[in-house]
Amino acid sequence: MVYDVMIIGGGPAGLTAAIYAARAALKAVIVERELSGGGQIIDTYEVDNYPGLPGISGFDLADKFQEHSNRMGVETILGAVKQLRQLEPWEEKALEEERLEESGWLQAAGQEIVPEPEESALSAEANESSAEEKRLWEILLEDGSVYQTRTVVIATGARHRKLGVPGEELLTGAGVSYCATCDGAFFREKDVAVVGGGDVAVEDAIFLARLCRKVYVIHRRDTFRAAGSLSKRLMELPNVEILWDTIVEEISGKSEGGREMVDGILTFHKKTEQRQTIAVDGVFLAVGIVPNTDCFTGVVELDEGGYIRASETGSTSAPGIFAAGDVRTKALRQIITAAADGANAIASIERYLQ
Amino acid sequence: MVYDVMIIGGGPAGLTAAIYAARAALKAVIVERELSGGGQIIDTYEVDNYPGLPGISGFDLADKFQEHSNRMGVETILGAVKQLRQLEPWEEKALEEERLEESGWLQAAGQEIVPEPEESALSAEANESSAEEKRLWEILLEDGSVYQTRTVVIATGARHRKLGVPGEELLTGAGVSYCATCDGAFFREKDVAVVGGGDVAVEDAIFLARLCRKVYVIHRRDTFRAAGSLSKRLMELPNVEILWDTIVEEISGKSEGGREMVDGILTFHKKTEQRQTIAVDGVFLAVGIVPNTDCFTGVVELDEGGYIRASETGSTSAPGIFAAGDVRTKALRQIITAAADGANAIASIERYLQ
Repeated sequence: MVYDVMIIGGGPAGLTAAIYAARAALKAVIVERELSGGGQIIDTYEVDNYPGLPGISGFDLADKFQEHSNRMGVETILGAVKQLRQLEPWEEKALEEERLEESGWLQAAGQEIVPEPEESALSAEANESSAEEKRLWEILLEDGSVYQTRTVVIATGARHRKLGVPGEELLTGAGVSYCATCDGAFFREKDVAVVGGGDVAVEDAIFLARLCRKVYVIHRRDTFRAAGSLSKRLMELPNVEILWDTIVEEISGKSEGGREMVDGILTFHKKTEQRQTIAVDGVFLAVGIVPNTDCFTGVVELDEGGYIRASETGSTSAPGIFAAGDVRTKALRQIITAAADGANAIASIERYLQ
Repeated sequence: MVYDVMIIGGGPAGLTAAIYAARAALKAVIVERELSGGGQIIDTYEVDNYPGLPGISGFDLADKFQEHSNRMGVETILGAVKQLRQLEPWEEKALEEERLEESGWLQAAGQEIVPEPEESALSAEANESSAEEKRLWEILLEDGSVYQTRTVVIATGARHRKLGVPGEELLTGAGVSYCATCDGAFFREKDVAVVGGGDVAVEDAIFLARLCRKVYVIHRRDTFRAAGSLSKRLMELPNVEILWDTIVEEISGKSEGGREMVDGILTFHKKTEQRQTIAVDGVFLAVGIVPNTDCFTGVVELDEGGYIRASETGSTSAPGIFAAGDVRTKALRQIITAAADGANAIASIERYLQ
């Protein structure tokens, strides 16, 4: 059996693609690596910017997306994608013959097909442009299972680079955040720390300075990698304190209402070698994002950061492969924009399949 | 008082922009023409493709968007925009002085400012690039009130061109639809008619033919305006019947569960002059879309269809003006993509204001 579309990744982009695929009566399936599904949002304590569902927990929102997709009848294959490749014309032909044989059509018709190399080479050549363009794709999973599909939506998302210090994992969603736009509003009039020195870190710090009482920026070097105008603007803000040449060694928490919440960080100055404890309510880690595109290298064009080069429509450098959500090149990575991408990818696939 | 952003239009794009603006601590306000607000979706009987809220009525979804925006504290000015224009440098200066005077700052400092034409001309020239770029915008409403703002999100949406026949208005949302992607799924295994002959009509008909038992395509000419390959594909479908040179004169309904629902159309053949009654459960009108951009002509660049030329980020040809939702040039006009646009526009505005 050949799918119309296989959707890799069951986060907001993938699940929205599933909803739209089902509504367009496409033969669709999701491939999801985690039993829980839902993507990055399940780690978000509260989501307050998905329009129509204010103040919902990330876990509940993921659940609602999943339920919606289930309701539309799209199934999920649990597994991790190992390889994605386009079938060669002869493989496609063999597959087609196998299908016909299986369905008993060849036997019934009493036909015997002996492949004629020259002819098939000729016809392959004649059909090159369209055949080359719209050949089937094969997805190989880690467990060895193999699937064929006309099109693929890559919606594998991205993951925030971890700092790798004690307290980080335990306090994620409890004061430790990887997204100032998502979680900043929960720290109004509070003290927070931003860790990092790139564009995102500096933008996050400027953004947070408007909401928070005090913003510490912890950077391991003595200068920002961020754009000069941004850095200048940050350094002019009265409620921002920048700690250069400093790394975070630990994030500490205290029990609050039966739940462990961030109460401070332990820093280490690389030059003076002094340690310092700073009381903060939130820690925003902006030390980089890593798109989940390892197994797609060589299949679709990636940018220097590893993101799949794709426009709003989701079209990639490979015919039949579409990218949706955080995994693609885009200006704003949010749940709502990921979901929109899922819808766009399926609209593009409908045009592609026509 | 000068707003950071004025959002014109309170549909999904505008309300999402409001939510994001509030979270970014921008001084924001919505300008909405209708008391009800919500945009086109309030006319949609059931929305089944807004992820996370399956099977909700358009009215209820609009309500949830509105509540979310209210909860974030964004107010709405009820009024229709008459004109949008960028202030001249001298107007901006006068406005600034007026503000200072009002705040008593000038008097307190004992200063007397006599505008020096040469100097101000010089400084205006010196700052030309940035001043020209980032001058204030003024919004004039039909009721004569005037507002100033640093940036504008145009989220005025589009409206479907009406056919203008008896039954159309009464049965909208009760079998009459202007969006096959939105409502097609409600007509599985039923008979429907598509009215129109452009790309959208033909695409809608192909889409519906996969879901519905029978699709009539009613077109007033004897050939489609749609792309040839599309038209060819449509004409090959076994469950599609095309009625050329035919117009719809009336849409009829019958009471179903206390509600008037579509049960047929009355057609008129322009050459044979014969009338015919066709029983259908749904009528999809695809006779064109009109973006609500009348009062923005000359302010931002529009495409030939009247849409505001803008990319995914919302940036238009005018500095400080961003477009979001159905009003901009884009491939897929859906609630989810409109909402994503609202988020994107505010992210762009944050970068613009920095």
